[in-house]
Amino acid sequence: MVIVMQHGASAKQIADVVAHVETHGLRVNIVRGEERTIIGVIGDDRPIDGSLFEQLDGVEKTVPILRPFKLASREMHPLDTLVPLDGMKVGASKIAIIAGPCSVESREQLLETAFAVKEAGAVALRGGAFKPRSSPYSFQGLGEKGLELLAEAREATWLPVVTEAMSPEQVLLVARYADVIQIGARNMQNYALLNCVGESGRTVLLKRGLMATIEELLMSAEYILAQGNGRIILCERGIRTFEKYTRNTTDINAIPVLKQMTHLPVILDPSHGTGKWEYVTAVARAGIAAGADGLIIEVHPHPEEALSDGGQSLRPEKFAEMVRQVQSIAEAVGRS
Amino acid sequence: MVIVMQHGASAKQIADVVAHVETHGLRVNIVRGEERTIIGVIGDDRPIDGSLFEQLDGVEKTVPILRPFKLASREMHPLDTLVPLDGMKVGASKIAIIAGPCSVESREQLLETAFAVKEAGAVALRGGAFKPRSSPYSFQGLGEKGLELLAEAREATWLPVVTEAMSPEQVLLVARYADVIQIGARNMQNYALLNCVGESGRTVLLKRGLMATIEELLMSAEYILAQGNGRIILCERGIRTFEKYTRNTTDINAIPVLKQMTHLPVILDPSHGTGKWEYVTAVARAGIAAGADGLIIEVHPHPEEALSDGGQSLRPEKFAEMVRQVQSIAEAVGRS
Amino acid sequence: MVIVMQHGASAKQIADVVAHVETHGLRVNIVRGEERTIIGVIGDDRPIDGSLFEQLDGVEKTVPILRPFKLASREMHPLDTLVPLDGMKVGASKIAIIAGPCSVESREQLLETAFAVKEAGAVALRGGAFKPRSSPYSFQGLGEKGLELLAEAREATWLPVVTEAMSPEQVLLVARYADVIQIGARNMQNYALLNCVGESGRTVLLKRGLMATIEELLMSAEYILAQGNGRIILCERGIRTFEKYTRNTTDINAIPVLKQMTHLPVILDPSHGTGKWEYVTAVARAGIAAGADGLIIEVHPHPEEALSDGGQSLRPEKFAEMVRQVQSIAEAVGRS
Amino acid sequence: MVIVMQHGASAKQIADVVAHVETHGLRVNIVRGEERTIIGVIGDDRPIDGSLFEQLDGVEKTVPILRPFKLASREMHPLDTLVPLDGMKVGASKIAIIAGPCSVESREQLLETAFAVKEAGAVALRGGAFKPRSSPYSFQGLGEKGLELLAEAREATWLPVVTEAMSPEQVLLVARYADVIQIGARNMQNYALLNCVGESGRTVLLKRGLMATIEELLMSAEYILAQGNGRIILCERGIRTFEKYTRNTTDINAIPVLKQMTHLPVILDPSHGTGKWEYVTAVARAGIAAGADGLIIEVHPHPEEALSDGGQSLRPEKFAEMVRQVQSIAEAVGRS
Repeated sequence: MVIVMQHGASAKQIADVVAHVETHGLRVNIVRGEERTIIGVIGDDRPIDGSLFEQLDGVEKTVPILRPFKLASREMHPLDTLVPLDGMKVGASKIAIIAGPCSVESREQLLETAFAVKEAGAVALRGGAFKPRSSPYSFQGLGEKGLELLAEAREATWLPVVTEAMSPEQVLLVARYADVIQIGARNMQNYALLNCVGESGRTVLLKRGLMATIEELLMSAEYILAQGNGRIILCERGIRTFEKYTRNTTDINAIPVLKQMTHLPVILDPSHGTGKWEYVTAVARAGIAAGADGLIIEVHPHPEEALSDGGQSLRPEKFAEMVRQVQSIAEAVGRS
Repeated sequence: MVIVMQHGASAKQIADVVAHVETHGLRVNIVRGEERTIIGVIGDDRPIDGSLFEQLDGVEKTVPILRPFKLASREMHPLDTLVPLDGMKVGASKIAIIAGPCSVESREQLLETAFAVKEAGAVALRGGAFKPRSSPYSFQGLGEKGLELLAEAREATWLPVVTEAMSPEQVLLVARYADVIQIGARNMQNYALLNCVGESGRTVLLKRGLMATIEELLMSAEYILAQGNGRIILCERGIRTFEKYTRNTTDINAIPVLKQMTHLPVILDPSHGTGKWEYVTAVARAGIAAGADGLIIEVHPHPEEALSDGGQSLRPEKFAEMVRQVQSIAEAVGRS
Repeated sequence: MVIVMQHGASAKQIADVVAHVETHGLRVNIVRGEERTIIGVIGDDRPIDGSLFEQLDGVEKTVPILRPFKLASREMHPLDTLVPLDGMKVGASKIAIIAGPCSVESREQLLETAFAVKEAGAVALRGGAFKPRSSPYSFQGLGEKGLELLAEAREATWLPVVTEAMSPEQVLLVARYADVIQIGARNMQNYALLNCVGESGRTVLLKRGLMATIEELLMSAEYILAQGNGRIILCERGIRTFEKYTRNTTDINAIPVLKQMTHLPVILDPSHGTGKWEYVTAVARAGIAAGADGLIIEVHPHPEEALSDGGQSLRPEKFAEMVRQVQSIAEAVGRS
Repeated sequence: MVIVMQHGASAKQIADVVAHVETHGLRVNIVRGEERTIIGVIGDDRPIDGSLFEQLDGVEKTVPILRPFKLASREMHPLDTLVPLDGMKVGASKIAIIAGPCSVESREQLLETAFAVKEAGAVALRGGAFKPRSSPYSFQGLGEKGLELLAEAREATWLPVVTEAMSPEQVLLVARYADVIQIGARNMQNYALLNCVGESGRTVLLKRGLMATIEELLMSAEYILAQGNGRIILCERGIRTFEKYTRNTTDINAIPVLKQMTHLPVILDPSHGTGKWEYVTAVARAGIAAGADGLIIEVHPHPEEALSDGGQSLRPEKFAEMVRQVQSIAEAVGRS
């Protein structure tokens, strides 16, 4: 970190700051500018809350220099991590398309969707059994019954299953049924849950919170990595902004930024990123063009009857068309 | 809700939408404008995800009309809810000031702070035993040891204790030691946790998420109320915006808005709302002037040595000065 | 618009609102729901500030139904508008790539860039002579001298020229030298300027403000259209959000949304959208994949010496590589 | 500024960066950390676009250290600037309340309002003759006729007049009639206009843009100061965020932040800050409690008939009540 002293800070104030830094076992290098003196802190200052130096007399502000994550960074791990998903590897040349309904609603709905998305080219089935809903009056998911239906769909279609766990006590249960445990956007900073899926060793699909920075997403991945679990797929799913015409704003910049900063694979969720089915295909194409390793898409056989996210779900035939268009883009960027 | 048809929607498209609405047991009233036909839906449509109608041909968009919460609203409960906190009632005329360190760090630190804030006029002691930190490398709190120290501080000072639970399995443990269970900003939409504190019957301090709308805050309160627990204190603590000079942006508008929309008491956290100790007092005054029922303030005897939030903690003497200034404001708005 | 009455609004309050609506020459249709009565307003209420009804007793809120723009909408003009740019038509099958330096700095810099971008495939030259800078101490552009250099570059390369006018009195001057007048993001709601370029009849490149909604962008286009000038190219250039790792957040959703809502052509500026040269190519690909009609790119022969926007400018050889990649994407979406 | 090198940057890369910095007449101090080398730049680097160094091999990022404004800063000018407004001084102990209609609509409306706000305690009259409206179909103001009515109201009430100029060519005209020229939020970065009001020497009320940072507001003040005009009143009027229940989010933090960073007086506009009349009084109280030097308030005798901003205008009797409440707060903070 760099500690910026106020204009006119005294020699004693500077000395006090230096002494304070040294109590943390760190060293300093003082840069005396024309208008400001800055104190460069030498050593790993990540565990320290730098803002405490702002309490010392003569300090204007502190500026972090080191990125706060390590295990998730390319510096520590320059090569791409490939996360196995059934036969394929997410992060390798082939684009991974995960698809299925927002919520598991019934055997018929789930199986119909599962067969349709497999036929169209999906490599995994998504579907929520436990649903985080902003209203207690909304459909909350089928719970374990939904997990059983997902297992049945896997047996029928051989598609691996991605589904969400919302609390630590659900992790073991979900892990019994699912190939990939999803951490939803609202839980990106639920650290008890992150520690728990870290310990589970199961592959994790970690969605960016709707108002989380890219750095915070990587810090949440760091929690899982710190438990020894490196099977993490990151997912950009749109952030909350002032623009209200779409439900969220897909942060397309995040795709190349994440690919540069981390070795973990990155996929895009254009269903939540836009919130409206008519824009899903265009933004799915954009995601792959920007370098995403895959997509996760909400598909429902009868979206006008869906119990959740009806407005952003694709019908199976639209999904099949989306896959075709995405394939063209994948080839244009040298992938398949 | 109102369903807005596209310009030129056909009679058949309108009839199809009406038929679809009626399958949900709701009725309609059609308003034919000069450019658009809109379909007013009659009945309680809260449990339905309105966006599903956007899948039907000829529909442009849907617009919700009813507010999605009920139990938290003034309509259902016009009188102010007063939440007992030891001898006093939060929401009544007297301003409730809760204060203490961000994290419980040691017996000395906690007791010194507790006596100081009591002396200055605080009515409850805050302090974190379980700390949600964005980095796995940061201090994560003392855990149960911290709870024990809080209990000791309560015995020594007779101040009721406010502390955070981060996951459902911590709720019972925290409830053994704390008078008020805090739900932190990152957990405002952790529904498993909300249900759990709802069931606990213990008083809840519910902080607004840094990415949550006022309506979503009230929906999260609704989860707790739906479990039969009405002892809820809402807390505005700043939202995330583009402005980076302060850590968050205190949403002062939220104070009068919440006081109008809900019967629950509302307090302000200017420590997180600003993130810098030098602005805490000014924004604390503003909160009380705007109509807040109380404040929650981070105080540390030696903020330059704090293990968390050092930059936004007040020293005890600054806190005492803040209380004096807040008292003047309280009197100016007819409170004490 | 729809006027939503408060729960329990009286018959007299409803009658008063109706009477008030009728003084504006509009009619109503009353929808009596179980919890709320809503009043549907019939007629073109665009010129009225609907919020005034919120002053009447018993009114909870007003909700607009009609989109506020007309001439810019697809409803009024279903076919794509093609804007001529020298030999080509922006909005037609061929992707329009506009490129050049942020600021015109010297004859050498401009000509070197102009020849390089032409060689790589650009169809127009951009370059700022008048520069809006947040600091009065930053380079403010060469002014008319810069316009003369742009004219010289056009003669040398036959590339049409795009350059910004910052105030009404600059419009005539800029129009003497430029083929396309750019309205920068900071001036998107400078209505005096919009009226002036509307009257000029010259082609306008209208950039979305960094704080403007999609709807507000179209309202600004409506100002120009209302002056009889339909030669407008819209440009998404990133919006301001809480994410600070990139300079702005490219709103990729805006591309398909705008293509659906308006007949005007839409291009993307990934240089400002990301603010870092290393992400420009990936986001340029994404823009074309999402359906943009073109790109505007900052190119500088020696970005490490640029007087403005050095960090986001591509070197000519990187730009040429970007064009190749964009061509592959264009073909994948059936364009050239 | 500080230039942060990538992990593992070579000695040659560091030397190249140093050489490049020195071509700008600046010096360096190199700080070699355990993970990163950083290069402290010594000298006034404000005129340089620091991002250009990000083009050099081995550079990770650049971090500005100096604040980009000078004349507006407390460092250059530690004492409060007091801006004369008729008999009083804005920035001194007495709170300045400016009030009046959003738009000048008629002689009757203006005079009725002017007398009412004077009687209630306002020290200046606001009213728009030129109105920036997002829609070309909305009322655009009475123009010069409105200025004449304002002059008439001043003669009748002896209240000084505050009104907006939207473009450079309006400045001379507005200056003939107005005591204070308002720069509206949409024009905060209209640099041609800022230069023009700077040259005019007339007192300027500079409103913060709805998505402008505090620093950008001060940079815009710097434009005016750089023309030799120090009679500037800054105005916080709410920023655009994701919260949509209110029209804007009043950034109450900005009040103490600005009072600390600059010597210029700061007022609050709670009418735009909230956008709803029922919250104006509470937020006005908050502004004064936070340390604002004044308020600007929209008042209309018949807001349900207003041609603009009807929903956020106070009736005269509500305004008088607001003034009484604000007076109590002013006394509580030692002002009048």
